Amino acid sequence: MTPLSDLGEFGLIDRLRTTLGDAATGETVLVSIGDDAAAYRVSEDRAHVITTDALVEGVHFDRAFTPLERLGFKAISVNVSDVCAMNARPLVATVALGLPAGIAVEDVEALYAGMRRACAQYGCALVGGDVSAARSLLLSVTVVGEARTDALTLRRTAQIGDIVCVTGDVGAAFAGLKLLLEARERLREDAAFQPDFADFQYVLARQLAPTARLDLVEAFDRAAVRPSAMIDVSDGLASEVHHLARQSEVGFRLYEAALPIDPETRTVADRFEAEAPVLALFGGEDYELLFTMSEKDLERLPRQSLFTPIGRVTAPGEGVLVQTAEGGEIPLEAGGFDHFGAR
Amino acid sequence: MTPLSDLGEFGLIDRLRTTLGDAATGETVLVSIGDDAAAYRVSEDRAHVITTDALVEGVHFDRAFTPLERLGFKAISVNVSDVCAMNARPLVATVALGLPAGIAVEDVEALYAGMRRACAQYGCALVGGDVSAARSLLLSVTVVGEARTDALTLRRTAQIGDIVCVTGDVGAAFAGLKLLLEARERLREDAAFQPDFADFQYVLARQLAPTARLDLVEAFDRAAVRPSAMIDVSDGLASEVHHLARQSEVGFRLYEAALPIDPETRTVADRFEAEAPVLALFGGEDYELLFTMSEKDLERLPRQSLFTPIGRVTAPGEGVLVQTAEGGEIPLEAGGFDHFGAR
Repeated sequence: MTPLSDLGEFGLIDRLRTTLGDAATGETVLVSIGDDAAAYRVSEDRAHVITTDALVEGVHFDRAFTPLERLGFKAISVNVSDVCAMNARPLVATVALGLPAGIAVEDVEALYAGMRRACAQYGCALVGGDVSAARSLLLSVTVVGEARTDALTLRRTAQIGDIVCVTGDVGAAFAGLKLLLEARERLREDAAFQPDFADFQYVLARQLAPTARLDLVEAFDRAAVRPSAMIDVSDGLASEVHHLARQSEVGFRLYEAALPIDPETRTVADRFEAEAPVLALFGGEDYELLFTMSEKDLERLPRQSLFTPIGRVTAPGEGVLVQTAEGGEIPLEAGGFDHFGAR
Repeated sequence: MTPLSDLGEFGLIDRLRTTLGDAATGETVLVSIGDDAAAYRVSEDRAHVITTDALVEGVHFDRAFTPLERLGFKAISVNVSDVCAMNARPLVATVALGLPAGIAVEDVEALYAGMRRACAQYGCALVGGDVSAARSLLLSVTVVGEARTDALTLRRTAQIGDIVCVTGDVGAAFAGLKLLLEARERLREDAAFQPDFADFQYVLARQLAPTARLDLVEAFDRAAVRPSAMIDVSDGLASEVHHLARQSEVGFRLYEAALPIDPETRTVADRFEAEAPVLALFGGEDYELLFTMSEKDLERLPRQSLFTPIGRVTAPGEGVLVQTAEGGEIPLEAGGFDHFGAR
């Protein structure tokens, strides 16, 4: 028998795909396993996308530091983010809740309130679900979205010469996580410890209740442009760039100096004696959108603060590189998170 | 704070619906929380249905007695059963897997093999999912199905005078569960105990790997008839009859002598000194379809062994009754399973 940790999460997915075969794509199923969401045709010119992501207590969150209303909001957001990464809009959501002994009805209502707030914000209907007992709290959310078939955007179609862009800023959610983990450590040493998070509301909100970038999908639609490839930043920017590089069979060159980093993230990096660009590249759970687009199409988008150009798509032989602020070049490792502990 | 066990599963669902409000139904969302699946319009004359159901180790199954290939099959079947209960056919499925430490890659492959076997049998594509670590094994499956809008069948539209029917037989899955629980008890007393299941393959298969009744949906389609109301039998026949009665605002009269019970189920009932009709009415997880239909429509279906008439829809004032084999009448309690322990 093969322990899971020998393969890691991505290795497991690769092996399952190889051993069992993808669901056949064809007339109905347009995109199967291996992108942010699967896609299937619903009419001549429209497709639906579907994605499922679970949040598990003790793996994805610590209940002691996670207001449940925000957790509900996050559970919807992380799935809507996958829908947006296909250049689609969310339509309906369902949730399977696993509830541990001792949870109160009011806790469950707080979870639902957060899910409903997120659904209202994204224009999505929470239409159903399932509740059962479980050893620890879990939320498994599915979101179905819709798009014109010719607007669907995959990971495997980045073009050499395209500009690489990312929405918002990166590294903030990981900065928020570092603060929460530090507070947990201090509380273990001293039960009377009172964490002071007053100066870190932004990075904490990024960790606890991220917002999916539906605004980018809407901006593409208004400008009638489509990115050549897109992915959401859940496992860290470096990891996502490697996914695009591998699936599109291209290289990437990122400019360290161009990485959008919030001042609060820099403050947290300093506090932990870390480099802010390291948080930006390898921190996870940003739920920003990383996309590639031709210069010509990019010019058709209004100048705005929605996203930042951070690099170029290059030939596959050039690999995935970061040009440092000092002008040097270093290969970028995939890094990022892996819940099974393998790299 | 209110402990969950004060409300029970159905009480919790009712309270969430009251406190938070249903997702508005309208042009797009046709059916929201409160039926076997939600439904939303995808074109002028077609709707999709969506349902999510999770199987959690220690709650829904004991890994020691559950071959993982069959568990994968069951996880798909229980969701396809909900799709069928809307008179729809399954289209695509996703799964979120939570994997405990120590599970082997081969175990995960067995789960997927079972899910793919079920999907192939039901003509459904397994298009995506999510894997993460978890404290105990869990499978959260979502299935999307499709139907003509005018074929969708709800719980709330049973008509007084209709015939009540159920597919296959009932009580067998619960009989299988009783045998597995007995074997677990014996193994605790004597680690060398070898359970002999040779005479009980049918009821064990019904517990471990139930089949969704897509064949009934296909029979309705061929005969161009629609049931007036339908629900799948997951929590026990009595519980489902009460759902139909409450949501349709009607009464029910079931005939004990008409209940379809397999001889193996009767043998298991004798072994545990239980009444077979009690297993049939209150045992759970049959995943048969319970439906109501006018006599006229029923005559248009070919005579076959697919389902059995077991009662009549009556006026709401008459309540939910069972006419016993001896000719007496007893009120039928909802009973059935409740994972939170409340009734």
